[in-house]
Order: sequence, then structure tokens, then C-alpha cells
Amino acid sequence: MPSKVTIATVARHANVSRQTVSNVLNSPDVVRDETRARVMAAIEELGYRANLAARQMRTGRSRLIGVRIDPARNGIESSVLDRFLHGLTETAAPAGYRVVLYTAADDDNEIATYDDLLAAYTLDAFVLTHTHYDDTRTAWLRQRQIPFTTFGRPWGAPDLHSWVDVDGAAGTAAATRHLIAAGHRRIAFLGWPPGSAVGDDRRSGWQAAMQAAGLPTDGLARHAPDGVGEGERLAREVLDQPDPPTAAVCASDPLALGAWRTRALAVVGFDDTAVAQAVGLSSIRQPLAEAAAECVGTLALLLGDNPTTAPRQATAGGRSTDPDMHHVLLTPRLVVRDSG
Amino acid sequence: MPSKVTIATVARHANVSRQTVSNVLNSPDVVRDETRARVMAAIEELGYRANLAARQMRTGRSRLIGVRIDPARNGIESSVLDRFLHGLTETAAPAGYRVVLYTAADDDNEIATYDDLLAAYTLDAFVLTHTHYDDTRTAWLRQRQIPFTTFGRPWGAPDLHSWVDVDGAAGTAAATRHLIAAGHRRIAFLGWPPGSAVGDDRRSGWQAAMQAAGLPTDGLARHAPDGVGEGERLAREVLDQPDPPTAAVCASDPLALGAWRTRALAVVGFDDTAVAQAVGLSSIRQPLAEAAAECVGTLALLLGDNPTTAPRQATAGGRSTDPDMHHVLLTPRLVVRDSG
Repeated sequence: MPSKVTIATVARHANVSRQTVSNVLNSPDVVRDETRARVMAAIEELGYRANLAARQMRTGRSRLIGVRIDPARNGIESSVLDRFLHGLTETAAPAGYRVVLYTAADDDNEIATYDDLLAAYTLDAFVLTHTHYDDTRTAWLRQRQIPFTTFGRPWGAPDLHSWVDVDGAAGTAAATRHLIAAGHRRIAFLGWPPGSAVGDDRRSGWQAAMQAAGLPTDGLARHAPDGVGEGERLAREVLDQPDPPTAAVCASDPLALGAWRTRALAVVGFDDTAVAQAVGLSSIRQPLAEAAAECVGTLALLLGDNPTTAPRQATAGGRSTDPDMHHVLLTPRLVVRDSG
Repeated sequence: MPSKVTIATVARHANVSRQTVSNVLNSPDVVRDETRARVMAAIEELGYRANLAARQMRTGRSRLIGVRIDPARNGIESSVLDRFLHGLTETAAPAGYRVVLYTAADDDNEIATYDDLLAAYTLDAFVLTHTHYDDTRTAWLRQRQIPFTTFGRPWGAPDLHSWVDVDGAAGTAAATRHLIAAGHRRIAFLGWPPGSAVGDDRRSGWQAAMQAAGLPTDGLARHAPDGVGEGERLAREVLDQPDPPTAAVCASDPLALGAWRTRALAVVGFDDTAVAQAVGLSSIRQPLAEAAAECVGTLALLLGDNPTTAPRQATAGGRSTDPDMHHVLLTPRLVVRDSG
């Protein structure tokens, strides 16, 4: 390995003290212009880069962001947050951050992990996913003034922190309007049991679009846990009634795939998973790379970094410039294929 | 936040010098038993945890492992390495490591990123994925004596470093034998163009199993880039000849899904993706969580950590105890569904 360039090397090269080099890096204002220029030239020439340990001791900043990933799963849905993670990794690096991963089984477990990560690695911030009703994680972080943002709204709680989310209701409303435009009048909604915030939101979009078109929704909503088998069962249930539906808007691709197996319904799924793409299922696509970039931009604002690394939304009209009040709601996109 | 417990706090509590606390943490042998016990009791009682910066300054170890993820993609296949990553994150934490992510477009780009990560974060080690012919990354790391292991063999190169891989040829051989046992005699192979190491390996398993059964392979192998459309095209091509096949072993699930669309072939895919599970495609499943655990175990050996964190294979008969020569080849499993 080439010999390491240290502050001492830079100091010798620029013929100044180590303290002066340290000042140039951390408090450049106290150094005379001519000296600062000489030190910067030496840094440039020698390719000096402060290492994490030294920089962290000086600045208290690690440039590491913690993000949870789920335990290994095999489901169709697991790809959504993976796509978000890919986007986060890609956009964090140019903004000067790296992503550190952890897993957690529930809120308490995740909070214990924050504690570990902060003690062991002094992470700068967290990006939380899976926000839900009665989420205890955000209060814990706020109390300790640890910077974070969430991918997901603070469901059922006041807006006390920054967040980025995708407007699920807008997605299912677009799917419903698309099916109405195709001539369907009896359109079912197949979703998860009430109480899942994201599921409730997706159902509300279908309901609103049906009402706006003057179409009834009574008896047309069915709920079950996620899964292809459940989707098929719900579809058969809703078809097995007088005046059955001809189409269904679904809260997920597995439910939609199950409903489509009946060959008796036009269907639209949600999340545009690889499965939807492979079998020709119409689905609603979340802008996950954009959501990830927004999260990184929000963190850069929270951490007081150069706003040039923040995304365009940070300065868009109507949005607050207080980073704690930085809320971004992105609109998903309907991808139409064979199924509806 | 509760006031931070530092080495000084521990020293006061145990009524020893800071140097003694530091010795207990870093060179316990030089401390008398009675003193060591008192310091350990204070550490326990106060809940002291060395933070990364301080510990790294002392030990030169960051307890961070670098892993690449691919740029965001939408394909069916992207889930395979994500599943590996989930396993890696889960097994690294109990072994005392955290995973730091990066992306890279090619070998040169990845090597430049190693340089950045080592300078900025002093990573302890890397887990490389996507090994291929003429891989320049491993030589770069070896020259600099940076610990690493690869998920993937050093294709076409001598075994100069530790690796973990899945035996793709064993997987396609098992699929071929399964189809033969079901009565098929004309079995095609649909794969990627020769020169992709992983693809060549998967083809060789089909070829060997056919030869072992005394069955011909001439004219039964077809190659194209990955994709559902390509799979369907290759299947039609191979069906459109005298004495057409009745089954096909495929190098991937997208190729298999395309071939299955013809409804004229029994098919087995590779990787057991969510798509295979959703549509009932037989496929070969890589033990990705196990592969990830093996990689973490190998790194623990390379980094000289307590061998109790190393996997069982490290002590299995016939395997070398030299961590640089630690090679693990796992066997995939055929999952039979509707398609073949």
C-alpha cells in the first residue's frame, strides 16, 4: 500500500504546523488567505483525505446514514423497499453519505438498534421506512434530537418531522378512473384488513373516485391478508353475488394476480412488481428512486449541508424551508398492461 | 440524551487511570486479574460502549463491511442479490459488523470506490459479488492486503482468495435429471450467450446430465440475452425443428417464463424468483441466506475474530483452515411446481 498521507505530511509539505492544517480543514476563517491557499495546494497535490476516525473525532460527523432492511423474505412485495434502497445508495454517495444497513423485527427492536448504532458508529441520521399508526420510533429520535426523515407519512399523528411519501390514494383513484373510462361501472376494491394505514389510504382513493363518478361502492370492498391465494378467494367472493363487478382495483400485485386468475375481472394491482411486469398485470408504480432522492435531500437540509445537494423540491414554491417541516408527497403512475 | 459514558467515567468509577481502562479494552493481558475484573464490572454497570471513532483510533478497525448493490433495476432477476444482501445484514450484526453499501458501474469504477471508502471510512473488508472472467478487482485488493471474500468463484483465474459460491451446474443437472425421470428425452437448454461464466456453468450441468443419461444434446442449446421475450423466441426456435424437444432447462426465470408461454414445453427456471413463485414455475433455488452467512464467517476468519462467529464449514473435514483458502460451494435446490 502507498504510504499514507496524513495531516503531518501535509504540514511538512506546506511548511506549516499541524494545527494550521487542522484549522484550514475545520476553521478556515482563522487562517490567512496566503497560508490557506498553500495548505490547500498541498492537500490537492498529495491527495490527502481525512479518514473517518480522524474527521469524526474533529467534527462529530460520520457521514453514515442508517437504513433498515427487512429480514430475508420471498414474497412478491419485498422488491419495493429494495428498489427504494437502491435509489438511496445511488443518491447518498454524491451527497457525501453512505448507507449502513440494519434489520429489526418491531419498533422496540428497532429503537434498541438505533441506540447500538449511535453508540458504536455515531451515525449522522436515519431514514425510517414502514411508518404506521402508533409508531414509537419517531418520538424516540425526536426526543434525542437525532436527525431523521421517514419514507412514509406519520399516520394518525401530528406532522412533527420531515417525511417523503407516495400518494397511494391518488394511485388507486387513477386506476379507478381508468377502469371507468374503459366502460366498467361495477368496480370492486380488494385490499388488506382495515387498520393498515397504507391499505386504508389505497382504499380511500378507489372510494373517492367511485363517488366522484356517481358509482356505488356498497358491497364491493373485500379485505384479506396479502397473497395470491387470498386475492383469488376475495375475487370469487365478490363475483358470487347479484350484480357482480367486472373489474377490481387491488391494494397489491399479489391480490391482483389472484383476482386475475378468475379470468372474470379486469384488474389493476399496486407497486408494479417484477411479477406484474412478467405476466402483463396493470399496476400502479411508485416513483421509488425519486422518493429516495427526496429523502437524501431532506437529510442534507437537516444536517445543514450545502443546499446544492438538496433536491429541487426543497426550493419549490409552497414548500417550507424549515427542514423539520419538509414534506414531500409524490404521485404514482398507472402502468397499463393486459389485465385492465 | 443521558450524559455519555466515556473511558474517563469508567476510570473514575473503577478508581483506576484512563490508561488502565484502555489497557483492559485493548491489551487485557497486561492488567492484573483483580483490576481487570473491577474495570469490567464498571463497564458493565455503566453500560459503557466505545464509540466508533475512539475505537477506530485505537484499533484501526471500523467494524464496517462494504458491499455493492446494483443500480436500481426493474427486472425479475434483481431480487437475487437483494436476498443475499438481506442475509448478509442479518448475519453480520451478531458477528459485530455492519454493512455499508455502494454502487458501481464496472470494475474500474468499483476499484475507485474501494479507494474512496477505505480513505473515508477505513472499512475492514469487502464482500464482492458479480465475479467474472478477467476480474480486476480481486488483484487490486490482494495487492493492498485488504481483506475480502467473494460471492462467486474466481472464474478462469487461480484460487488466490477465499470465496463462497453456489454450484449452478449441480442445479441444472438436478433439473435435467428431474425432467428425464418425468419421461422427457429431448430436453433443450435455453441460456445466455457463451462467455458469461455463470451461464457457461449452468449449461455444463445440463450437458453433463444429458450425457450421463446417454441422451443427445446436439442442436438443443440456444442462447440469447436474458428476458421473457427472448425466452419465448428461443423456445419457438428450438420447437421449430425436426424431432423437437418436450422440455427445457433454462439459465434464468425470465427465459423459462418465456419458454413456458409457448405451452409446448415443460420448463425449469433458475433462481426461484418471486415471479416463479407467483406463476407456478419450477425453478432452482440458491441458498442465499446460507451463502451470506458463509461470507460473514469467512470475513470473521480473515479478520482474526473469535472463531465462534465463523460458520460450521470452517471446521468441516477436508476444508482448509487457512482463511485465504476458505472455499465454500453450496448446492442449490430444485423447487418443483406446475411448469415441469
